[in-house]
Parts: sequence; C-alpha cells; structure tokens
Amino acid sequence: MHKFEVWAPLARTLAVRIGDSSHPMKKSESDWWAAEVDDARPGQDYGFEVDGGDAIPDPRSAWQPEGVNGLSRILDHSSFPWTDGNWQARPLSSTIIYELHVGTFTPAGTFKGAIERLEYLRELGITHVELMPVNEFSGPWGWGYDGVDLYAPHHAYGTPDDLKTLINACHARGLAVLLDVVYNHFGPAGNYLGKFGPYLTEAYKTPWGAAVNLDHEGSQEVRRFFIDNALMWLRDYHFDGLRLDAVHAFIDRSALHFLEQLSCEIDALTAQHGRHLVLIAESDLNDPRVVRSREAHGYGINAQWNDEFHHALHGVLTGEKKGYYEDFGLLEHLAKSLRRAYVYDGNYSSHRERIHGRPIGGLPGDRFVVFSQNHDQVGNRAQGERLTHLVSVGRQKIAAALVLTSPFVPMLFQGEEFGASSPFLYFSQHDPELGQKVSEGRKNEFGAFGWDPDQVPDPQDASSFERSKLRWEEVTQEPHASLLEWHKKLIALRRENGALTDGQLNLVDVKFDERAKWLVVNRGGVEIACNLGADRQAVPISGRGRNVLCAENGWQLRPGLIELPADSVAILSEEPFSAQKELSQYASG
Amino acid sequence: MHKFEVWAPLARTLAVRIGDSSHPMKKSESDWWAAEVDDARPGQDYGFEVDGGDAIPDPRSAWQPEGVNGLSRILDHSSFPWTDGNWQARPLSSTIIYELHVGTFTPAGTFKGAIERLEYLRELGITHVELMPVNEFSGPWGWGYDGVDLYAPHHAYGTPDDLKTLINACHARGLAVLLDVVYNHFGPAGNYLGKFGPYLTEAYKTPWGAAVNLDHEGSQEVRRFFIDNALMWLRDYHFDGLRLDAVHAFIDRSALHFLEQLSCEIDALTAQHGRHLVLIAESDLNDPRVVRSREAHGYGINAQWNDEFHHALHGVLTGEKKGYYEDFGLLEHLAKSLRRAYVYDGNYSSHRERIHGRPIGGLPGDRFVVFSQNHDQVGNRAQGERLTHLVSVGRQKIAAALVLTSPFVPMLFQGEEFGASSPFLYFSQHDPELGQKVSEGRKNEFGAFGWDPDQVPDPQDASSFERSKLRWEEVTQEPHASLLEWHKKLIALRRENGALTDGQLNLVDVKFDERAKWLVVNRGGVEIACNLGADRQAVPISGRGRNVLCAENGWQLRPGLIELPADSVAILSEEPFSAQKELSQYASG
Repeated sequence: MHKFEVWAPLARTLAVRIGDSSHPMKKSESDWWAAEVDDARPGQDYGFEVDGGDAIPDPRSAWQPEGVNGLSRILDHSSFPWTDGNWQARPLSSTIIYELHVGTFTPAGTFKGAIERLEYLRELGITHVELMPVNEFSGPWGWGYDGVDLYAPHHAYGTPDDLKTLINACHARGLAVLLDVVYNHFGPAGNYLGKFGPYLTEAYKTPWGAAVNLDHEGSQEVRRFFIDNALMWLRDYHFDGLRLDAVHAFIDRSALHFLEQLSCEIDALTAQHGRHLVLIAESDLNDPRVVRSREAHGYGINAQWNDEFHHALHGVLTGEKKGYYEDFGLLEHLAKSLRRAYVYDGNYSSHRERIHGRPIGGLPGDRFVVFSQNHDQVGNRAQGERLTHLVSVGRQKIAAALVLTSPFVPMLFQGEEFGASSPFLYFSQHDPELGQKVSEGRKNEFGAFGWDPDQVPDPQDASSFERSKLRWEEVTQEPHASLLEWHKKLIALRRENGALTDGQLNLVDVKFDERAKWLVVNRGGVEIACNLGADRQAVPISGRGRNVLCAENGWQLRPGLIELPADSVAILSEEPFSAQKELSQYASG
Repeated sequence: MHKFEVWAPLARTLAVRIGDSSHPMKKSESDWWAAEVDDARPGQDYGFEVDGGDAIPDPRSAWQPEGVNGLSRILDHSSFPWTDGNWQARPLSSTIIYELHVGTFTPAGTFKGAIERLEYLRELGITHVELMPVNEFSGPWGWGYDGVDLYAPHHAYGTPDDLKTLINACHARGLAVLLDVVYNHFGPAGNYLGKFGPYLTEAYKTPWGAAVNLDHEGSQEVRRFFIDNALMWLRDYHFDGLRLDAVHAFIDRSALHFLEQLSCEIDALTAQHGRHLVLIAESDLNDPRVVRSREAHGYGINAQWNDEFHHALHGVLTGEKKGYYEDFGLLEHLAKSLRRAYVYDGNYSSHRERIHGRPIGGLPGDRFVVFSQNHDQVGNRAQGERLTHLVSVGRQKIAAALVLTSPFVPMLFQGEEFGASSPFLYFSQHDPELGQKVSEGRKNEFGAFGWDPDQVPDPQDASSFERSKLRWEEVTQEPHASLLEWHKKLIALRRENGALTDGQLNLVDVKFDERAKWLVVNRGGVEIACNLGADRQAVPISGRGRNVLCAENGWQLRPGLIELPADSVAILSEEPFSAQKELSQYASG
C-alpha cells in the first residue's frame, strides 16, 4: 500500500496513474488530494493526471529516473544502510568548504565517481564538501540551478541510493556535506508545478520572471514545499547543511520571513536528530539581518556568502573594472572587507547607483563565507576563466593566503587548489528550441559587454561541459603540484593557529599602501604580508620578534620590515621565540 | 537673490522660468541642478523648463497657488510669527487622536475655518488633531491621498501661512497636530516628477501601479525627497508628528529600510529642536518590526494603526461578513485584539488565503492606534456609512467604550463623537476624462460586491463632497448630544484612571461568551462589561467590591454579576470602597 498525496488547489480532478490504472484522488479542505493504492510499492513509476490530462510528475517526486518529463518513482527512504551513526560535522568556525560540481568533478561525473576523490579532499584539509545543486533538472548535464523536481536527485548523477552512498562515504572520512538548493525560481523546462498550485506570483519581478510566491495567496503551502524539501535533504540524505541560492531574489513581505521560518524549522530538526545542521545563504543584500540570530530579531541563517570580499580581492589581483568590479579595485576595499566583511555597508555604490548595505555590527567572522573563486565568479565569465588563467602563480598564492588566513569561513572551488587548467564554462543540454534561446542569450549577454559573440562558447555544445571537467593528472605536474602544496600548507597553518579562526573582526588590523601596493593583515599575532607591486620591496611588519611560517623563497627579514619579491606573500608569527623558531629571525628564505 | 535647486538625473537641459526670463541651471556631479537668480524673491512664481519644454512645477514646490498644473511660488518659511515657543505634545500613552478632513470638517472647508472648532475639540478631551493629507492634489476637493506636490499645502484649503496659523492656534489650546503623509504613490494627475528622476520602479506592482523607487538606481535621492518632506512639515509647519499612509505598500529590500531611515532622521530632528515628534504608520503587515525600537532591530516607528481591532469590533457590532470582515465576527477575535493587538499573528487568514502576521512580543499598548471608525473604514463603503448609520445608539456607545478604555491609543473620526448624520463619501474633482475613469472605477468596484452601480454615489459629483460635510447644528440635538456627552465622559474617565493608560497588554483580561454575546474586559481594576445580546442579561464581573463609573440607565448590580439591558455597557471600578463609592454597591442605575 502506498498513499499518494499532493497539494493542488488549481486542479478540478486528480488521479494517480500507475501502469494502466488510474486511481482517482480525493480532495481535502486544505486542497491536498490523496489516494491510497493497495498494490503500489517502492520502485513503481507513477504520474498525476490533472483535470484528465496526461500523467505528469509529482511535484514532490523523490526520483525521476527518466528526467524531468518522465514518470516519478516511488522511493522508500528508510531502507538505506547508513553507517554514520556517530557522525557530527565540525562547527563553522573551523570549517573549510570545497565547492564541487558532480558532473565535472570526476571523469565519470557521478555521485559514485566523486567517492574516488574524497581521500584527496581529506588530505588537502577540507572539512565540508559542498555540492552544486543535485536536484533534477532538464537535460543530462547542466549547472543544476534550473531545477524543477526539487525532491529528486538528478538522474544522470546516479540513483538516490548512490547519493546516499556518497554522503555516507564522506562522513566515514570526516567530511561534512553541504547541498546547494535553489528556492528562488524554477527551471524553464519540465516545470509542471503551475498545473497544481500558485507557486509563482506576478506581483514581483526577478531575473527569472515572476517571483516565487512567498507572501501571496496559497503561500503557506509554497513555503512548506521548500521547507519540507530542506528538511528532506537533511533528514533522508544526511546532508549536514544547505547553501541557499540567491536569497536576495526572495521577495517576502510577511511578518515571518521565509528565511526565518526555514531557520526555525532546521533548528527544530537539529534538536530532534541531535546533529549539527547549518544554513548558508548566498546574499548580496549586505544586510546583517540575514545572519543575525533570531533572538536578536535576525533570520538566524548561520552564515552568508560574502561576494564583496571576492570582488575586492579579484579587483586588486586583476585590475578589472568592468561590471560590478567598478566598485572595487583598491587595497582600501580589500582592507575594509577583511575588517568589516561588507565593503558597501551604507555607502554609495556607483555600480548599483544607490546606497547599499549596512554595517554588520558585532557579528563574528564565521557568519561569512569567503573565496577567491566560485562557480559563479568563474563560470559567469564569457570564457569561464579561473584565476589561474588571469594572474601569475604568485598572485594565486596571495589569493589563497588571504582567503585561508581570513577571519571568515574559507571556501575553495573545485580544482582551484591546484590551479586547474580546465575552465568552468556555462553548460546546459536543453531541447533544441530552448537550447537555442539559452545559446543566443549567452552570446547577447556577453556581446553587450563588448565580447565577440563567436568567442563565447556555446552552452549547448557538449564540449562546454567536457572542457569543464577537471584534469586530475595535473595534480602531479608543475605548477599545479606546488600550488596544491601551498594550499595544504595554508590549511594546516589555519588549523594550528587559533588566532586565525577566532573570528574576532575587531582584532583584525590591516595596513596598506595604495601606491606602493603592499598590504599587511595582522590577525592576533599572525601577520600576512603581501607585496602586490611590480618590484621587490620592503613591507613594514610588527616590531616584535617574528617567525616566517609560510612563504616562497626570496624574502628577507629586517628589523620592522620584510623584503618581499613582487607578487609574493609571507605569513609571520609574533609568538615568543623558541630556540628553534629563533633560527628564522632576521633570516631569509 | 534666490537659489533654485532640483535633482534631475533625467534632464538633458534645465532652466528656471520666472516671468518672461529663463535662467539656465547647472548640473553637479550628483545630478542636482542649480541656478542663483539675483532678483528672485519670495512671492514670485516660477517653473522648471526640462529639455526646453514648458515650465512645470518644482518637485519640491512649497506652494502651488493655482493647483497642480500651475507655477510654483517662492516661499520664505522663516517669516511666520509663531507663538508656540514652549509647546510640547503629550506622550502617545496619554493621547486621544481626532482625525479630520479639512475640506469637510467645517462649512468653510479651510485651514482657517477649522480654527473655529478647536475649542470644541479641547472640551471634548482630544489631545491630538490629525489632518488628512493637506499636500497639493488635483482639483479643488478630494481626500488628499493622490498628492503630487508633497511640499505644498493644498491651495483650496488656504495659504501656507493659513496652515501655520491653524497649527499655532492648536498649540495655543494644548492640541498637538499630526499630518497624514502619503509616500507610497503619487496622484494620477499633475505628476511631473517622471521628467526629473526615477521616482518610480517597475520592479514591483502596487495597487497604484509601479512602486515608489526605494531600493533601485537613484533611490538615495527618492528617499531623500520623502524624508526631507517629513522633516519640512515638522520643522517649518511645527507639526508634532506624521501619520504615514499604507506603509505596507512600500517595497524596500535595502538593508536600511526606508522607515528605519526616516525614524532615525526624525529622532535627530527631535533632538535638535527639543520637541517631541512622533511617527505613526498605517500598516497592515501585522509585523511588530515596524513599531519595535531600533536598538531591538525594529524600524523605530512610534505607533501603528491597528485595523484588526477595528475589523474585530465592527464585525461584532454589525455582523458583516463581506470582504475582509470574513476573517472576523466572533467575540474571540475582539478579545484577542484587546490582548494581543493583532488578531492574525501567525495564523491562517481565509480572506488573505495565507498565514498572516506574527505575535507582537512584549510591545506596549501605545504602539497601536485603535478606532471604531476612520476615513477609510467609513469612506470606502459604497455609501460612506458611519457606524451611526449601521447600528443602534447602544452599540455606538459600546464601540466608544471599548475604544476609549482600550490599552491602545484611541482615535475618533470627525463627527463620530456626536454620531454625525453626514456620510463620509469618496469624492474627487478631476478633469472630465480622469474623473470619468474614477467614477466608473468606483461603480465597478462596488458592482463586483453586488451593489447596484446606480446606488453608488459618483465621486465626481459635487454633492458627494457637500454631503460629507459635518452638520454642526446636530451637536445640540438628540441623539447626537447624548452621544457627545458619552464620549466626553469616557475620555474624562480615561484621563482619571491610570489603569486604562498603562498599556500593559499582559494585564488585560478578557472574558466572553460567544453564544450569550457578552464580553467583559478587566483593565487592571477597571472593568468594561458589554451586553451585545438581543436581551437583558446578567454578565459576570469580578467578585471584589465595585463602583459603576459610567453606564446608561437600566443596569443592576448583584454579587458577581451586573445585569445589563441589550446593547449596553457598564464601566466598573474595583477600587477599595470609599464611603461615597459604597453607595453604588449592589445598586442600579
């Protein structure tokens, strides 16, 4: 026996189709339709017939083995042989995230394929793996942000059990797993939700058209749809947390904001299951309310991505001034972000042509996730260039040092740690009609920025997907191998130095010289000295005794100064000298 | 010499026209245009020529003597002979507001005309007069919510000095003055702002079309336009506070919400001028954030209108169930509103078809303004019926008792205190084309609710305005005179009993019987016992000794009970008996 249930206020009649039989469903007062079918069981495929139409997928389908337009399959979540009974994720303050895309992370591009690389991630020092969206989306490959069956793992990545196997394997190696979920829009293909209920509202515009309905008629069930989805991934798949895509695209004027409701319910699940669960929001609102605790009238989200740290760092490293980079480019911006997280916290943004943000107040550093690269910052460039395609190895090392010694939660994007040569392109595989629109949209978008449209790779071309796959043979080749070692060393340093993870933004001291292009960050006794100038120069450091903990060759210590080659960084400690440490005083490396 | 200034990012050229001369203006980096004109002086008329077009009004015009399409007149705010140097308004907790519409309050319908009635208001016990919008709007008469020259007092009400004279006269009589301001939309006629800057954004829809631009490009100056307007009324006209129309129509996703910015700046003016200034929001969000203090991460608005108290009371009194009244009608709703302000505070609203609101937490009662009638609740009915047209005198007295003994800030709507026979209709006087649209819109709106369109008065018909004027001769006639006495008595009672104004919602105790239709409110020792049933009945009251403070004839006290005639109310005190008070024990009246 299986009970089918679906919320469908827009349906006049509803039936569940299994094989050749159609079973009428009955509507309750709350607009939920239900039918109990005696011989239905896990593994069987079904669809819903709305108003006598063809069978379409269950909005909460747990499995779409044939993709977004196929039938749904009944799944029993209780049968998986989990072995992670005692598993607990580390707290965010000691977290290092690794963002990966299942389809391009390994040659196989599957959940099971990813398991082969977990040992590598553990050795690198990663604590949390973050999967780009794995919900069912149109086509065999894509980034995953155009999901439509939000409860089903993407069929091309493997079965639901394959995903559980991957997560179980992560936990066995001490790796927590985060999932990127997209609640701000639905994909343009395979979306049948409009036949069931008012999931969207025309009252607001978003980059994707009509907004998700969070505050209009029927919104209580639309909100449940997303919150139950969040609970499902955490409960049934043992994910340790969620990354919420673009929460600035939520438009919700309810007294209880969707994000606050979500954080309430996740906390309740945390209490019930006794596992540490976290919510991380992608937010460009620069509004501390998102990550402030609920008792202080915030939304209670545990952390947010801080894109402005990226923009400030990227601007300094590359000198780019196009698009949103026009608001960045000075060491001053980078310094502010290191101290106050947001660069725009109540000041005028030229790019936005308005005042943006507000100060974070007393929030700790672990409310902010920072990175020098991520899927968007790389993949939304016309050519999908990583930092390794744009700046010297020395600057890549500076980027890594600033991210991995920051007072925030550092995140790496797959392959960044070895300066992967693969681009991360925008790729999709829609049906020809929609696919052509996506291709043309992409060309026009970058054409408007002055790119030659023929130079913009076609997202629908299979090579865009294939070229984006990591080439793991690179990890033993130079300069990849030494970059990888650099990252390992920095991660180890972060683990060993409590000063780096104390998250006390008021203790972060940053000095810089905009003209000479040096910047020194003092993090409670650990100093990060960067020379971003074109020439070797002396950079002033703290007058107290010091150790060089980590640096490339070519530096020289002098009283109150360290001489650094162009494009290089040194990390020093102010700790009292031990005999061994004293060796490095006023030395060179 | 006069310096003309205007923010106009959309203009390519700008000049100020005075008489036959046109003076070119110069643009600054911040898109403000300016020109100093040597022989310009207060009293002269001018207009702005955008891109070589005809002279149009200054967006910040201080005076439009010829209406919305006329020229602007230079005004010197420093010359008025104020005599209110030591004036201070009472705190909100001891406030009784009287909402009035200048055009219909007196036969003259002017600022000066209103002065004649101030003594009457003072004797009634009013502390704050609230003027419906006096900004310049299209036509000689109207409600005022379709303002376009927000800095100019409506020409048909008198001159700017006339308005100052009215406010000065109020202060001389101990009356504070509040002004209703409309920052959520502009009127459809006479609005030239679009030629100057992006005052609106198409990103959001409101009942009036495109939303006011509070968070998109250029919003910093649009916000300044409104905030400077608020500061102007308070500083230059000596208003004691503002009532902000429909703040739920503001769509602002900035980290610093417009309302919070506004309350910050009003507080700064308060500190600078040493006068108590308040902001009161009309909000149907049921979101305590609006009236929570800024240090508790609220917006810091001093109080909000609480329509749900009205709806609960109106539903109980009239039995109406149409429109939003479908969510009300039980004594339970009224009891909840008396205790928790909001009836919908996280529960499902059938009318809204979604969950609405959240609990107010520990907010005090004086954050909420309540009323049994206001311009909207009367005027947005097809026939503009007041409560006096809908229910018995007894029920009007119950309404008055519940409002004026409530733990909130009571407000009366002009004429309510004597059960004025005049309706308050919707009226406007636009040019014929727009006027016809307004008339038809009105007929269709009520036609959809089942009204005969011919029964809906035409807003454009002068009689709709004339019929809405108060008939002051009524105050000495019955039943008006006794209703007036009843209100005076209740207001005096409120002033004398500290328990009624302590605002402690946690001390409000309400008992009721939904079937027998009685309700008793205990407010820290003062009890309000209502019989809303069709027959005389005994209503249980506190067992302790008591005094009848205020009631119509026909009541009888018995141990633990008061017998009340149908449609009547008694207000009792639990104070320890004095010899004199004991006389009323177990007595009848």
